Amino acid sequence: MPTISHKGRAMPASPIRKLVPYAEKAKQQGKKVYHLNIGQPDIETPPQVFDAMRKINFKVLEYSHSAGIESYRRKLAAYYKRYDIDISLSELLITTGGSEAITFGIMATMDAGDEIIIPEPFYANYNGFTVAAGVVIKPITAKIENGFALPPIAEFKRLITPRTRAIMICNPNNPTGYLYSKEELEQLKDIVLEHDLFLFVDEVYRDFCYDGKKHFSVLNISGLEEHVIVIDSVSKRFSMCGARVGNLISRNRNVIDAVLKFAQARLSPPTFGQIAAEAALDVSADYFTGVKAEYISRRNLMVETMNQIPGVLCPNPGGAFYTIARLPIDDSDQFCQWLLESFSYNNETVMLAPATGFYATKGLGLDEVRIAYVLNNNDMQKAFECLDKALVEYPGRKL
Amino acid sequence: MPTISHKGRAMPASPIRKLVPYAEKAKQQGKKVYHLNIGQPDIETPPQVFDAMRKINFKVLEYSHSAGIESYRRKLAAYYKRYDIDISLSELLITTGGSEAITFGIMATMDAGDEIIIPEPFYANYNGFTVAAGVVIKPITAKIENGFALPPIAEFKRLITPRTRAIMICNPNNPTGYLYSKEELEQLKDIVLEHDLFLFVDEVYRDFCYDGKKHFSVLNISGLEEHVIVIDSVSKRFSMCGARVGNLISRNRNVIDAVLKFAQARLSPPTFGQIAAEAALDVSADYFTGVKAEYISRRNLMVETMNQIPGVLCPNPGGAFYTIARLPIDDSDQFCQWLLESFSYNNETVMLAPATGFYATKGLGLDEVRIAYVLNNNDMQKAFECLDKALVEYPGRKL
Repeated sequence: MPTISHKGRAMPASPIRKLVPYAEKAKQQGKKVYHLNIGQPDIETPPQVFDAMRKINFKVLEYSHSAGIESYRRKLAAYYKRYDIDISLSELLITTGGSEAITFGIMATMDAGDEIIIPEPFYANYNGFTVAAGVVIKPITAKIENGFALPPIAEFKRLITPRTRAIMICNPNNPTGYLYSKEELEQLKDIVLEHDLFLFVDEVYRDFCYDGKKHFSVLNISGLEEHVIVIDSVSKRFSMCGARVGNLISRNRNVIDAVLKFAQARLSPPTFGQIAAEAALDVSADYFTGVKAEYISRRNLMVETMNQIPGVLCPNPGGAFYTIARLPIDDSDQFCQWLLESFSYNNETVMLAPATGFYATKGLGLDEVRIAYVLNNNDMQKAFECLDKALVEYPGRKL
Repeated sequence: MPTISHKGRAMPASPIRKLVPYAEKAKQQGKKVYHLNIGQPDIETPPQVFDAMRKINFKVLEYSHSAGIESYRRKLAAYYKRYDIDISLSELLITTGGSEAITFGIMATMDAGDEIIIPEPFYANYNGFTVAAGVVIKPITAKIENGFALPPIAEFKRLITPRTRAIMICNPNNPTGYLYSKEELEQLKDIVLEHDLFLFVDEVYRDFCYDGKKHFSVLNISGLEEHVIVIDSVSKRFSMCGARVGNLISRNRNVIDAVLKFAQARLSPPTFGQIAAEAALDVSADYFTGVKAEYISRRNLMVETMNQIPGVLCPNPGGAFYTIARLPIDDSDQFCQWLLESFSYNNETVMLAPATGFYATKGLGLDEVRIAYVLNNNDMQKAFECLDKALVEYPGRKL
């Protein structure tokens, strides 16, 4: 029997996926499971998206241009303009979700054996994209004590080798919710220029910033034009994860040219999704004000409730809709499995993501979980009540 | 300025793409251009597809399961059953177009430096997918004289090295239209088993077989269960290229498990496209009878007309909607550019794909073009009239 590739064996299975059978079993047993484990928002997709699908009147569902539908690209450039980001059409390529934008960006700039520095905890699927490209992630540990702010630049410097090609951050961050400041981006600028690196910034949560803080895009740091590759997506912005429409932005002509060749090989991003994404850009500012107010209220509930549970440390995230919280537990993988398998309160339980999957350094995240605050406050309240009771009962409790 | 990767530089630009600016210029000059260069059919997408979009009544456009929407997977398995192919749900994963199925299949089974044997001419984007994976294509030249039938197995054997991991064919073939027989597949079976290889078969044109010939799927060759990876797609079947929905089939559990990990990293295939593809499976058998009759009529017109042009050899393809024809020219890249740039007849011209882009061996395909018979007979007639006149005028004519 022929065997699969080393790469195929090295591809990580998501720690959340491992829990799915336990969640299914819990539901079969009649337990209600509150899903705080995944970034699938419950927010309604703007009705314009479904209207656009109803209005389609062409007869042949054709490939779009490999770079994306031009009218959508134009409207997207106009969207950035509203945030004072000046992007021309030729600096922007539409991709099949942010996932494909990351993959293409990595493939276009890094070869097998090259290294990318990423502060951990980081979005677990970065592992999959880099394994596929044979690229090595060098993690720098961010600390819960300061809300997972950018680690000191000296630590980045220590990791630089001749194979270092890039630094990547997610801003605001999944899984920590941390919103990087302009000053932190400026610190990265120096090291990026000094070592002639690419700087990947995943800005898919750019619209989710709270407490009056504004998102500062790395695209507005001058002097980094040739270095910056921004990843974006409509998945979270308009609660349309299933559209699979993202985009890549770079002012480096060579990067755009190379990424376009990868894009041409796969022909085009999904046509329906692009039509939907273009329609979503028509939503009024109100839509977004409402969505943000909802997330802020959920976050406030989470931070307040969680920090009242003995032994819990829950940072107050400035953006996105996640936090990494510290719990008084021995092993987050076991704890999350136990919640589904062995625990219930009023016949309910909660599903969380073990933080171990977000760290590249073995042994980190054992006493942490990621919480996605994607449920309404009523459900969140019940979910945290479950967690409170669970932390008393859990055999691996550490206080 | 940081530089792009070796991989990014090695990514081939499609030879068709290089011609696009010339086609655009020709149109700006008021010339009508008949596009026989690309596999974008003009056949109408089944109305069920657009009806399904109109009927959507969910409120949140969510990720689907990474393996695809279960109801769609079930219906797809039933579709194969109609062709006496027995595929269970767990042997079938939905992908973002056939492109992603090939990429995932290659990544899951081959590492950088591994080799795959492919008869040439072959679908040009196989180059892109293998470059992305660092995999090396070893070509075997098929001959126009026998309609691009499978080259002798002895030639495959000569190319086997310790790094050979797979053989790939496309059946029916793009770009040649050749339909491989059961006997040819059996020949491949022996070498595949002897050297413990994977056998990739791209069957996206499986429904386009003519002259009463039936498609024989490699999935029905017994003894190859652990070796076969089939690529499929709805793009051509239902003229819905823009849906970006394909699938991968394998009875090798390790392959499915590995591919699923790649699929999980990119979260899900497009939800709208999957709903559309599921609806398309409801079309009646009539739809397909009509479509096939149309393609046969086009093919017959092409073969008859082309072979009347002095110096032209146009094989009679048994499937798909392409042929590679030999023309009395010096250089197909130059000829195809000249057609757009310097030639017109009644203010019309034709766009063809130079065959050089379908060969891995340098110097082959210089006197060949790929013709996609995707226009109606009236337009095709005019296009071939242009070609006839052009071959008289072309300065690089060789007779």
